[in-house]
Amino acid sequence: MGNADYAYPCSAGVNVQRVAIPEPQPFLKSLKYCLKETFFPDDPLRKFKNQPASKKLVLGLQYFFPIFEWAPQYTLQFLKSDLIAGITIASLAIPQGISYAKLANLPPILGLYSSFIPPLIYAMMGSSRDLAVGTVAVGSLLMASMLGREVNYNDNPNLFLHLAFTATFFAGVLQASLGLFRLGFIVDVLSHATIVGFMGGAATVVCLQQLKSILGLEHFTHEADLVSVMRSVFAQTHEWRWESAVLGWCFIFFLLVTRYFSKQRPKFFWVSAMAPLVSVILGSLLVYLTHAEKHGVQVIGELKKGLNPPSVTDLVFVSPYLGTAIKTGLVTGIIALAEGIAVGRSFAMFKNYHIDGNKEMIAIGTMNIFGSFTSCYLTTGPFSRSAVNYNAGCKTAASNIVMSIAVMLTLLFLTPLFHYTPLVVLSAIIVSAMLGLIDYQAAIHLWKIDKFDFLVCISAYIGVVFGSVEIGLVLAVAVSILRVLLFVARPRTFLLGNIPNSAAYRNVEQYPNANHVPGVLILEIDAPIYFTNASYLRERITRWIDEEEERIKATGQISLQYVIMDMTAVGNIDTSGISMLEELKKTAERRGLQLVLVNPGSEVMKKLNKSKFLDELGHKWIYLTVDEAVGACNFILHTYKPHMKDESEVWNNV
Amino acid sequence: MGNADYAYPCSAGVNVQRVAIPEPQPFLKSLKYCLKETFFPDDPLRKFKNQPASKKLVLGLQYFFPIFEWAPQYTLQFLKSDLIAGITIASLAIPQGISYAKLANLPPILGLYSSFIPPLIYAMMGSSRDLAVGTVAVGSLLMASMLGREVNYNDNPNLFLHLAFTATFFAGVLQASLGLFRLGFIVDVLSHATIVGFMGGAATVVCLQQLKSILGLEHFTHEADLVSVMRSVFAQTHEWRWESAVLGWCFIFFLLVTRYFSKQRPKFFWVSAMAPLVSVILGSLLVYLTHAEKHGVQVIGELKKGLNPPSVTDLVFVSPYLGTAIKTGLVTGIIALAEGIAVGRSFAMFKNYHIDGNKEMIAIGTMNIFGSFTSCYLTTGPFSRSAVNYNAGCKTAASNIVMSIAVMLTLLFLTPLFHYTPLVVLSAIIVSAMLGLIDYQAAIHLWKIDKFDFLVCISAYIGVVFGSVEIGLVLAVAVSILRVLLFVARPRTFLLGNIPNSAAYRNVEQYPNANHVPGVLILEIDAPIYFTNASYLRERITRWIDEEEERIKATGQISLQYVIMDMTAVGNIDTSGISMLEELKKTAERRGLQLVLVNPGSEVMKKLNKSKFLDELGHKWIYLTVDEAVGACNFILHTYKPHMKDESEVWNNV
Repeated sequence: MGNADYAYPCSAGVNVQRVAIPEPQPFLKSLKYCLKETFFPDDPLRKFKNQPASKKLVLGLQYFFPIFEWAPQYTLQFLKSDLIAGITIASLAIPQGISYAKLANLPPILGLYSSFIPPLIYAMMGSSRDLAVGTVAVGSLLMASMLGREVNYNDNPNLFLHLAFTATFFAGVLQASLGLFRLGFIVDVLSHATIVGFMGGAATVVCLQQLKSILGLEHFTHEADLVSVMRSVFAQTHEWRWESAVLGWCFIFFLLVTRYFSKQRPKFFWVSAMAPLVSVILGSLLVYLTHAEKHGVQVIGELKKGLNPPSVTDLVFVSPYLGTAIKTGLVTGIIALAEGIAVGRSFAMFKNYHIDGNKEMIAIGTMNIFGSFTSCYLTTGPFSRSAVNYNAGCKTAASNIVMSIAVMLTLLFLTPLFHYTPLVVLSAIIVSAMLGLIDYQAAIHLWKIDKFDFLVCISAYIGVVFGSVEIGLVLAVAVSILRVLLFVARPRTFLLGNIPNSAAYRNVEQYPNANHVPGVLILEIDAPIYFTNASYLRERITRWIDEEEERIKATGQISLQYVIMDMTAVGNIDTSGISMLEELKKTAERRGLQLVLVNPGSEVMKKLNKSKFLDELGHKWIYLTVDEAVGACNFILHTYKPHMKDESEVWNNV
Repeated sequence: MGNADYAYPCSAGVNVQRVAIPEPQPFLKSLKYCLKETFFPDDPLRKFKNQPASKKLVLGLQYFFPIFEWAPQYTLQFLKSDLIAGITIASLAIPQGISYAKLANLPPILGLYSSFIPPLIYAMMGSSRDLAVGTVAVGSLLMASMLGREVNYNDNPNLFLHLAFTATFFAGVLQASLGLFRLGFIVDVLSHATIVGFMGGAATVVCLQQLKSILGLEHFTHEADLVSVMRSVFAQTHEWRWESAVLGWCFIFFLLVTRYFSKQRPKFFWVSAMAPLVSVILGSLLVYLTHAEKHGVQVIGELKKGLNPPSVTDLVFVSPYLGTAIKTGLVTGIIALAEGIAVGRSFAMFKNYHIDGNKEMIAIGTMNIFGSFTSCYLTTGPFSRSAVNYNAGCKTAASNIVMSIAVMLTLLFLTPLFHYTPLVVLSAIIVSAMLGLIDYQAAIHLWKIDKFDFLVCISAYIGVVFGSVEIGLVLAVAVSILRVLLFVARPRTFLLGNIPNSAAYRNVEQYPNANHVPGVLILEIDAPIYFTNASYLRERITRWIDEEEERIKATGQISLQYVIMDMTAVGNIDTSGISMLEELKKTAERRGLQLVLVNPGSEVMKKLNKSKFLDELGHKWIYLTVDEAVGACNFILHTYKPHMKDESEVWNNV
């Protein structure tokens, strides 16, 4: 038998557990608990407990610089793997870096700079073993379009460049502070569905932008949306250059074929990884030999030799540009962070290790801050490069160091070789990379599993393609948040029935064999009772009662006497919710019904107790399980004929 | 024994119910169901089913004009009660109407016009029996401050007046359309806590505005916030008029004393109801006899005799004023609606009848539309007037008709009597009405029961008093919505234990006597698993497992083998949530643990099934109750010593 404090006699003659009212907690204690659960769900200081100071120092250092964790165990075997992976990603990084810098309307050399310093910093601070650092297409496009609204890059290329550094600086500051202040969960508002739609939309837009160099056009719209681009392209059909177009389609075809081949045979991953570099070499050779640059095929031109020049003094902290730089930094920073963390997490899952989101944010943020001081623009962990890194068999972040050294050597000695590289090859590289990001299969999967997620995804896609990158993002986030609010504003209520041969009561829609209990209406509410749903629940529960009474009238069964509300799934309640329960109790009493609550959780019990609702309802009308509540109701129903006033006597006499 | 389709053999030797996967529904059908639950939770067309066309017409007419419902049963007894109530509220309505019109910077006569036409319309269309229609202080203040930003009422009183009609028109259109499109739930974002804080703040601001006439000041700030008003008042201490101040404090004291008296003895409700009219008469007599209007006591001056002139042609539909009018209409319309509906609902609850929110919105909206055509400004059901109506024993909306007739007679014959009414008396009436709205006891109650509701309340108050009415409103709604989002973003997870002598498993924090089950970790998640909490839950559940394993290591108990997740309270899941479960399953497997789900609801089962997670996990690892899951785990644990690979054999051989 249970503890006497918790038990009191019940109709069925056995001890019934009383629903416990938790001890009131001091306000500061519960506030502390709440803050801890909100900001430190992973309890990062757990390891530090009961350790000597020196050990704490080492652990702290390892927390911020994971290289101290893995470097001591580094082996020659690891080095061999990382060397191969590093060289492979470098061969991808160089052409991609140049391409994306063009996409951002920045000097092509910035793409190489950005693949030199940031990977070194990430190698020390990052906790992912597979992330390959570099610039990203979406981030580059976003930067170009957001800064382009303030400054024209043709008219004032220097200011545009400096603004890009400044935006990168703010992106880094934002990213690092999100990590330091443990606000990483803000990235969670970008759900999987949002990212699928957003990436697909951005990839479409990026591909559309490539029509400029593929068709060899000199003038092009500054807008990025489908309608403007199509209008711009078809307004100047007479300017289309067939040489450029043929070259472009050939390279796209070549890149897609190599990708397909590598996908079919993962052992030959290097074929698709090397393909961009091969395209660049082939394209450059072709132009050099045929002098195609004089026949409408645009080339990169001169690239400055030498390592990154410092750019600390280039940062622009004066209005009116400061606002634009901050805004661009915040938006691109969040997007880059979301991509980096999602990519890091995915590969960590494949290899079964754990990466810490907040730590990653600090690493990515720091590399962008230092990047902005050394002529780099926004970097993160792009999916394509990291996937190649993973396939190439990287073991640690050292593959980033290898890539960085390879890029350094290129910067020191090989930049003149890119003089004749045709822009159309870079466009082909971008297009082939982007086509992989339009993940229509994921969208179909979303439609099959969750229509609302599909709506989020398609809003993001349409918003980006027909509006702008920001419109798409805001739209998708708004729809996602609306979904959460709708869940709470229109909670499901279910009618429960008894599962045969068990004490369980379940939703009769899901379990058609569940049996209705005569004279008792059992309802389950599936969400916290808050101000947003209090009125709805009052209406809806009243309707359940009306419908049940009509059904009873039609079938001539025993009349309704009890309304049991299963509160198991009601996680919390606010004062509007308590008022609703009070009203509901009055409504029920007016109709001669008794309200019975089952299994309210600790938060709910605490508040019902403080608001005196428990005293109003009577503690005896709160049960631990639906079965006990039904048992007690049935006992009264069958012992004394329905006659509300005598029930208290029944209770006193049991 | 259960249906063979739903049962399969279990460890304990009895039939176990399988968790049902609901039949897939056609997309359109589930969409229709969703829309119905969202917009028609009260199923208003239920009454119309299976009725002849003539009956349907009558029911439809009664739906829009409830007067056809109650008028046929109207008795002489009702008439007597409504007559007394109507005259009582008219005596309050006349001075209050004039006061509030002054507050809105509109000609005082508008207060009388607004108590003539709108009550007649409400009497036909309203479903509340206790609501007394009239202008409200908060709405008047809001209109003055929002329109005042566009047009100065001193410089261009006519345009200001016409804008007020236009704003009223849009408020009415908004209110009626919310009702017609069944969007009444939008009003629900104004929670009880928001309204307490907002009303308190607005009342404080309104009282501060009265300092102008109480101190007899000629110049006053156009800002409404505390800091500006205090600065304005103390900058001109030399202008304070003692005559005015003394008169003002005397009348405030008189009104408060009568209110206190009536509150103590509800039978003498008419003492406080008549007090404003008595104050007006006394004040006017005093001024008339002493010629105080020549000594710094400002008076109303001439009021035009005659009924409402039409104002349809005065509505302003041209920019730049249209935008202001629409914005003012929307904000004041929502606020007025919230007050009217809350007041109607409260009194309906006292008298145990039901009012339909959407129908009320149509009624209030229609009365404002017609009001704007007949020189009335924003009206709703103010709390003070409705409370007097209720106390005076009104039986039906006919008391509004009586009030309307009384006001009509005043307009036709008695307006000259108000010539000498001092403004300070009107201010005293407003102050005494407003003091009742600063409900500090409700705020204390909120603090005691729900700290977050208190935060919402105090944000609204501080926002209104130190910022503006809109800032307060936006702040409170934002905090309220943040609360809902936080609930979903940081769901509670609980460790469950077995309640002694029962099959129930409950939160061990709430039930300290619940017993831990060796080798099994039982967790409950208290919210839907959505993108906002998927990462958090992964971290948190991993930490639960870590902590449990540490505890086991410390105590040397049987090692952990199973993680049971009670999904009862998980109302829904999205694709991010499913990915989280997949990751969790992999994490568990890597640590040699088996994941077991208990009682997923129909939505969750549907999606887990479609996404193939059920197949991955294995249907046998999903149970209907925690007890059955624990039973099965224990059976395997005790029959075969922990050895994961053989479990499938156990299952096949049972």
